[in-house]
Amino acid sequence: MKKIRVAVVGAAGYAGEELLRVLLRHNAVEITAITSRKSAGQTVDTVFPRFTGSGLTFCEPDAAALAKVCDVAFLALPHGLATEYAMPLLNYGVKVIDISADFRLRSIAKYKEYYGAEHPAPELLKEAVYGQPENYREQLKSARLVACAGCYVTSVILASCPLLAAKVVKPTNIIASCMSGVTGAGRKVDLPYIFPECNESMKAYKVYGHRHLPEMEQELAVAAGVDEIKMNFIPHLVPVNRGINSTIIFDAMPGVTVEKIAEVFNQRYANERFVRVLPPNRCSDTKYVTMSNFCEIGFAYDAHTNKVIVTSVIDNLTKGASGQAVQCMNIMFNLPETEGLL
Amino acid sequence: MKKIRVAVVGAAGYAGEELLRVLLRHNAVEITAITSRKSAGQTVDTVFPRFTGSGLTFCEPDAAALAKVCDVAFLALPHGLATEYAMPLLNYGVKVIDISADFRLRSIAKYKEYYGAEHPAPELLKEAVYGQPENYREQLKSARLVACAGCYVTSVILASCPLLAAKVVKPTNIIASCMSGVTGAGRKVDLPYIFPECNESMKAYKVYGHRHLPEMEQELAVAAGVDEIKMNFIPHLVPVNRGINSTIIFDAMPGVTVEKIAEVFNQRYANERFVRVLPPNRCSDTKYVTMSNFCEIGFAYDAHTNKVIVTSVIDNLTKGASGQAVQCMNIMFNLPETEGLL
Amino acid sequence: MKKIRVAVVGAAGYAGEELLRVLLRHNAVEITAITSRKSAGQTVDTVFPRFTGSGLTFCEPDAAALAKVCDVAFLALPHGLATEYAMPLLNYGVKVIDISADFRLRSIAKYKEYYGAEHPAPELLKEAVYGQPENYREQLKSARLVACAGCYVTSVILASCPLLAAKVVKPTNIIASCMSGVTGAGRKVDLPYIFPECNESMKAYKVYGHRHLPEMEQELAVAAGVDEIKMNFIPHLVPVNRGINSTIIFDAMPGVTVEKIAEVFNQRYANERFVRVLPPNRCSDTKYVTMSNFCEIGFAYDAHTNKVIVTSVIDNLTKGASGQAVQCMNIMFNLPETEGLL
Amino acid sequence: MKKIRVAVVGAAGYAGEELLRVLLRHNAVEITAITSRKSAGQTVDTVFPRFTGSGLTFCEPDAAALAKVCDVAFLALPHGLATEYAMPLLNYGVKVIDISADFRLRSIAKYKEYYGAEHPAPELLKEAVYGQPENYREQLKSARLVACAGCYVTSVILASCPLLAAKVVKPTNIIASCMSGVTGAGRKVDLPYIFPECNESMKAYKVYGHRHLPEMEQELAVAAGVDEIKMNFIPHLVPVNRGINSTIIFDAMPGVTVEKIAEVFNQRYANERFVRVLPPNRCSDTKYVTMSNFCEIGFAYDAHTNKVIVTSVIDNLTKGASGQAVQCMNIMFNLPETEGLL
Repeated sequence: MKKIRVAVVGAAGYAGEELLRVLLRHNAVEITAITSRKSAGQTVDTVFPRFTGSGLTFCEPDAAALAKVCDVAFLALPHGLATEYAMPLLNYGVKVIDISADFRLRSIAKYKEYYGAEHPAPELLKEAVYGQPENYREQLKSARLVACAGCYVTSVILASCPLLAAKVVKPTNIIASCMSGVTGAGRKVDLPYIFPECNESMKAYKVYGHRHLPEMEQELAVAAGVDEIKMNFIPHLVPVNRGINSTIIFDAMPGVTVEKIAEVFNQRYANERFVRVLPPNRCSDTKYVTMSNFCEIGFAYDAHTNKVIVTSVIDNLTKGASGQAVQCMNIMFNLPETEGLL
Repeated sequence: MKKIRVAVVGAAGYAGEELLRVLLRHNAVEITAITSRKSAGQTVDTVFPRFTGSGLTFCEPDAAALAKVCDVAFLALPHGLATEYAMPLLNYGVKVIDISADFRLRSIAKYKEYYGAEHPAPELLKEAVYGQPENYREQLKSARLVACAGCYVTSVILASCPLLAAKVVKPTNIIASCMSGVTGAGRKVDLPYIFPECNESMKAYKVYGHRHLPEMEQELAVAAGVDEIKMNFIPHLVPVNRGINSTIIFDAMPGVTVEKIAEVFNQRYANERFVRVLPPNRCSDTKYVTMSNFCEIGFAYDAHTNKVIVTSVIDNLTKGASGQAVQCMNIMFNLPETEGLL
Repeated sequence: MKKIRVAVVGAAGYAGEELLRVLLRHNAVEITAITSRKSAGQTVDTVFPRFTGSGLTFCEPDAAALAKVCDVAFLALPHGLATEYAMPLLNYGVKVIDISADFRLRSIAKYKEYYGAEHPAPELLKEAVYGQPENYREQLKSARLVACAGCYVTSVILASCPLLAAKVVKPTNIIASCMSGVTGAGRKVDLPYIFPECNESMKAYKVYGHRHLPEMEQELAVAAGVDEIKMNFIPHLVPVNRGINSTIIFDAMPGVTVEKIAEVFNQRYANERFVRVLPPNRCSDTKYVTMSNFCEIGFAYDAHTNKVIVTSVIDNLTKGASGQAVQCMNIMFNLPETEGLL
Repeated sequence: MKKIRVAVVGAAGYAGEELLRVLLRHNAVEITAITSRKSAGQTVDTVFPRFTGSGLTFCEPDAAALAKVCDVAFLALPHGLATEYAMPLLNYGVKVIDISADFRLRSIAKYKEYYGAEHPAPELLKEAVYGQPENYREQLKSARLVACAGCYVTSVILASCPLLAAKVVKPTNIIASCMSGVTGAGRKVDLPYIFPECNESMKAYKVYGHRHLPEMEQELAVAAGVDEIKMNFIPHLVPVNRGINSTIIFDAMPGVTVEKIAEVFNQRYANERFVRVLPPNRCSDTKYVTMSNFCEIGFAYDAHTNKVIVTSVIDNLTKGASGQAVQCMNIMFNLPETEGLL
């Protein structure tokens, strides 16, 4: 079988490293280019000794050159930069899977509100398919441009959409209290991220107005079938390398029971290979999903306050970024969805 | 000056260790007895090498013997066991500061509901003063029996009571999403607490019905001046040794601003040495309070959802247990409240 | 192709979990039985949620029953217990790959000295092939009983044997100063291994007389072609989950240069897929080998003291236990040596 | 009593923070200036929230201005920069306690060899007293310039000097295999020190030629009464915040027993308040010394190889830097040596 030729643009960060880890054990792809401005010319093992023997070398990120050697390009670039590469690559006929936040918001106004600038390619916002396979599988099959879901967002929408769609919880007063490991900040060299500042520390940050918020609200509104959802998203930084743990608290609809919630989740995810639903009243633990593409969901009903409480865990770099991106690619290229991911 | 003679009952756990750490640098006390059934006869440095040179030896916990040598006894015992020692010690005229949960709930019914048994000494429930100096300073001055506030509870009520008392937030729909370090589980030898199970793991547990919940609700209701509060308390276990981080989300009263919240906190805690109020929109970080008796409070107002969000951090073993217990003792014995704690 | 039928005896510990992780992505095997006395009757995901969907259930470890369903059995049992299962399984014609220490020492006298008892099956000691593929590949091809190398030992002999064989270092005065993550102690529920005791702690233990010492000395003597080696092995416990880091200090033979050492290592491991040799004067880092079957070796020559210093890292559960065991199985069954391991 | 006026130059790093922590509870000093180029004008709590309420504000490091307000200045500056401040401050009559490496080596040649430049103030090298109280107490009493011992060095010499002085070990073939927490690298914002790069990682670095080596050799030679010692010092980086663990391996002199070693250590340190000697065959653990000025020493004799093995742990920021610096100051100003340090 002819292999799909893949380029990874911006491969020297943690999402890039995770993409390489997943793609190197994927039987249907061939990595034809990996780019890094800073490390161009160096072999990949100088940056990531783990990949010694892979024979890969970083090159400059040039769209025209990339277009000659790849069928699909993953963009693992900082916000803003992705658009610069997506446009020419699409024009050259390359499919683009963007792991950044550039194409996630459908509303130009929301983009401006949260990113402080006009979107540089508003026409692409319309075309982009949201890269969250459990919710957009059909659309992904024919997508040319995929905007992969954010890490926090993936964990929250997998835990929320089924309940909202089934109307067992209210679309108002939703609270997502989340924790992330430090790779969530990227491979960023900044004082708050050095070991002694993170270790033995727990802290919230951006307790309102985080850029993942409008993305959550957008997707939850779709699931709930309402025009708008306003919710709270409160992220925390915790001293682990990998993992996101989201605890989401909903107002229950009248008559909800824990059995009903179990039924909703089990039915919704019966055929989803990457979502594990726990028995009632159990809590998910990040350590059972790290280094995997799984989301693990636990749930409970609290009669004391009439709330539904859902816990949802993923690996921020796998299901929350690069693994999910490959899952999208598998769908786009009509491959088994789990290829490279089990 | 004659020193206060102090006994520590159950000194071989983490709360006991922290009590010794604090008391050994306290200028107005003399430790006259430390007990441990398991380690009786051993010098304290065999269990805690840190205390080499202290000259302390564990003895059997015998109330009559203790009564002869101490003015006040700290009980750092598991729930249930504390009552057994509190009663005879009080009868012998010893003041008792209990770090366990035995005397914290004023309602016998709530005690039975959450602990699954009748309270063995209901008359003492009435007498016990709640060991939370910022809220019960006056009552502590003449207390004979002190029920120290729980760790999670301390962080939540310091962050909540001023807002409820000032009526800037509603006493309904309160959510406390909290994280604790592993010493919060005590020096417990159990599979979930071994290093490889906790490290690189984040998880919620007891997402409803936790025993600290009725204690929070009791104290918040007092502050709010209402008969009852029903709230959600969701604890998480995080791989750090020490620290509690509580994020509390409130429905704002009409017209609330972040300046108003700042005013409420700053005014309330202006004279409290152990509570630090951050400027608006900053988040507290456990690493700035570990190994100290401080609580650090951050806050924000989210106009998007009309919520007030408060972050509150303490060291679970110091302000959340042994440090706060010594603060109570300082008040009971008319000592400077900060003695041994700065 | 007919798959090899595999049993894992003692699958509820960390080595068992790692075996399952490796075997579940191995294309040539079928797991036909996994045993656990304590968890018999439970599905594997109740103990390891990571394996949800695997369809595996723990059963009682009965040799006769196992013999009916497997071609090869991995023993992931505590020291001493392995022999009890190895004997009947071998008699039933099942090949046995033992991850414990029961068959590693060729000398009955050394066994007695270090384990404090007569070996229960001395005739099997003679037959057992040492499970260290880089050194015993030929013998493994026809082995019936394999005694997998210890974790510390694997890291030390891969770093030492080539230098001793090439006579660039002396076989005397060898010092191995090693560090291990906490899974090295097994899934052991004991006070020294709970999170708050390990975290923020570094300590040596068993600074002489550790049971891995005679195993190292045995293999290094073989490589050096001498009757006996006496060396120092000093293990340390460090707060990470996985990984072993060994720093080994040798007296250099006259005329040794760093180029000569590079030549020895590069030549020796040119065709070894699981050993990475770093350029001179670089140090290996466990984070580049965890969750992999690789050993990474760094080296330097210190002219100041005429010493050769080698650093060697592995994942204690993979190359140090279960991964290496599967590598042995691949050789025994004439499969590609890397199957399931890349 | 008139308080000693103290300045801390370079107070915004970890050694500076630790100095403030120690000095703020010291009863005989008054902190009159703390400097930081980068943070001048800011209150100390903006950098270290822990010190809220201290009333301290960073100022520019100007020697003339400092000389007017202080009797003694601690220099917590990077190597090289310390000399620039030490010279004018000494000229103004201020005593100087330097925590950097600038004045530790007595040999100008060694300084050039290891630091790659001529020493800028060779005459001060001669005057500087080595800031290691257990070995230089008498000289410190009248010192004007103190060169505080390095962190690794302190742990190694406390463990080595008594054995060398008593001639129970040989002054040749000494190996110090050491581990440090990440604060040992300072508050340095660099890729290798961000959390995800350090966590779950163990690695050696600078396995020969580290700048602490000539300092160790210098002090061990003094203790042994020999002209020169050549030894190996191999540092490792480990994911903890604080602590140094040194394991030192010596060739034993003929007839040495573990009892003899115990006698040497116990006698030598009988009157030293900050050195704890463990019983034979026990290993020291960093967790029992962190946040303290103690060094804990364990030892064993290995008859198998005729080696003496010593383990020595300190907190790198306290006994390894700022605590020891204050201990030196206490001696210089004729204060109780433990003031501020228990």
